[in-house]
Amino acid sequence: MAFRLDPRLQQDTIELGGSEHALLLLLNDSRYPWFVLVPRQEGASEWFDLPESLQIELHRQSVQLGAAIREHFHCDKINIAALGNIVRQMHLHVVGRRVGDPAWPGPVWGHSAAVPYDPTALEELKSILRKMTELPFTLQ
Amino acid sequence: MAFRLDPRLQQDTIELGGSEHALLLLLNDSRYPWFVLVPRQEGASEWFDLPESLQIELHRQSVQLGAAIREHFHCDKINIAALGNIVRQMHLHVVGRRVGDPAWPGPVWGHSAAVPYDPTALEELKSILRKMTELPFTLQ
Repeated sequence: MAFRLDPRLQQDTIELGGSEHALLLLLNDSRYPWFVLVPRQEGASEWFDLPESLQIELHRQSVQLGAAIREHFHCDKINIAALGNIVRQMHLHVVGRRVGDPAWPGPVWGHSAAVPYDPTALEELKSILRKMTELPFTLQ
Repeated sequence: MAFRLDPRLQQDTIELGGSEHALLLLLNDSRYPWFVLVPRQEGASEWFDLPESLQIELHRQSVQLGAAIREHFHCDKINIAALGNIVRQMHLHVVGRRVGDPAWPGPVWGHSAAVPYDPTALEELKSILRKMTELPFTLQ
């Protein structure tokens, strides 16, 4: 079956680009540099629903993204998590955290309502992202 | 420098065993089958602080553990996360979640005070764990 992005993920995020096997999304909450990777694999909900080669690729991409976020967004800690209690389509959060951010030191999920990006802030984020030349993603 | 388990992790968990490169801990909260893997790598705080071979090994172990938890503890969703906002020593949570558990569908971290295992419940958990013959860990 063809891959389709979950409607809730589509609603909460902005598509930035991706790789052959994964979508790169930005969670539309300007308070955190919060990215979401979605493997293009219909019906997957857990890590173990993915072929091992895709698991390893997705893991590597998330770690490369995490390292780039820490550097380019000046973060103190990177949170990488596959939760999916609400949206069951397999997706991986890669979130840059800063001491004193709204949810710090707790988790970002379910903390408080998102503050969407305004057009200027979104352009700034995209311009930082374009400087992350080490990322294995094509940007839109 | 020799590897030493972070004192806060030591306080909050029960050591169950491990593999050559990682400790297998049980979070002392009887409300969830909540495990923690700690790579035996002093000074690591992020995934990208680990050698890639150890990353892949730890990833595989977490996914095997997650699949076994879902089956043997009859869970609806597995949450796998490296957060570390409070305890900086690199550690990976592998948590079995059930619809209607105390934190459902939110995250378990920071939700409410742990309910420690009593000796009987801990023995039951260990006996389930001994049946997970597919796990790449030696149990104590």
